[in-house]
Amino acid sequence: MPGRRVNLKAMAKRIASLQPWEILGETTLFSNNIVTLVGVLAKSKKTGLQKQFTVSEYPDWVHVAALTDKGEIVLVRQFRHGVGEFTLELPGGAVDPGESADQAAPRELAEETKYASAQWEPLGALHANPAINTNRVHMFFAKDVVLTDGLPADQGEELEVMLVPLTAAVKMCREGAILHPFTHAAVFALLAAHPELLPKP
Amino acid sequence: MPGRRVNLKAMAKRIASLQPWEILGETTLFSNNIVTLVGVLAKSKKTGLQKQFTVSEYPDWVHVAALTDKGEIVLVRQFRHGVGEFTLELPGGAVDPGESADQAAPRELAEETKYASAQWEPLGALHANPAINTNRVHMFFAKDVVLTDGLPADQGEELEVMLVPLTAAVKMCREGAILHPFTHAAVFALLAAHPELLPKP
Repeated sequence: MPGRRVNLKAMAKRIASLQPWEILGETTLFSNNIVTLVGVLAKSKKTGLQKQFTVSEYPDWVHVAALTDKGEIVLVRQFRHGVGEFTLELPGGAVDPGESADQAAPRELAEETKYASAQWEPLGALHANPAINTNRVHMFFAKDVVLTDGLPADQGEELEVMLVPLTAAVKMCREGAILHPFTHAAVFALLAAHPELLPKP
Repeated sequence: MPGRRVNLKAMAKRIASLQPWEILGETTLFSNNIVTLVGVLAKSKKTGLQKQFTVSEYPDWVHVAALTDKGEIVLVRQFRHGVGEFTLELPGGAVDPGESADQAAPRELAEETKYASAQWEPLGALHANPAINTNRVHMFFAKDVVLTDGLPADQGEELEVMLVPLTAAVKMCREGAILHPFTHAAVFALLAAHPELLPKP
């Protein structure tokens, strides 16, 4: 129904005209140590249409917006095989089995960059891609990070750590030097929660 | 090398210490009408390590931040089978074969919402997920959209259109009512390109 205006407070409670699809069955289409593809056979309660949806099961992911006391954000540069090129991203990775997102965030930050923080703040969680992925991406702000000694770098990842002023990172998002969607989302969330981090224009 | 500071202008030109992995071969692991999973066997030039990466091939996607002349943004609510629940997102979808992203954006907007615009502006493109997906997400700003008649709604999608003031949409991103990562990224890009769209605090 195009054009309907919504009372935001009422929206969460109202009974929607749409109904969830009825799930008739699930089939594992493919599985390895990285991803499990599931065929979800579902039926529309509205039209009766039956359709198979292809869903990718991944563990949850975390990404960390880590700032030094000089207001620099920590980025990692690494070769990413999905796109076959180097990318700049916030440090992050998969939540391990039995681990919480709160635990995975400092672990990934340390493994990838050797930075640590005593001040952590959650920046919310997003769907990784709700149409096709089952998992969520948890975003964190790590304040006043400091380099730690003795932690081995994650050699398998072959990454390079870069410090960039937060204002420059925002510019890099805008101008295409950073193309990683969860980095964009986390920087957006960080600025929404902490507008004081950017100088007034 | 943690802690290295970067001259942004020099960064694009400098010779990185990291080298791309050598691709030894690719195998199709699974393929249907939605996704092709490819096993990419690659060798690190740094360590000699050989490893298989699992990559998902998808077509490019588009998402449209469409604003009415009253400053309301057009959202769609639909059941998403990846997460098994209803989500709020910007209108969007896959670029069809032979189609450009510029062509897909107004088509998807019209199919999903019946809105159209005479004023389109690209907001950049992101990797969908560079570690595992091959594709990109193209974001657009459609200004002063108007409802059109005669276009059939995309029945298979079973979606509901909602108009929300842009300031409310930003709040919904921040408070978790909108969990779609590319919607967050597109709203962030829209505000970066057009800060005048939000009232001064």
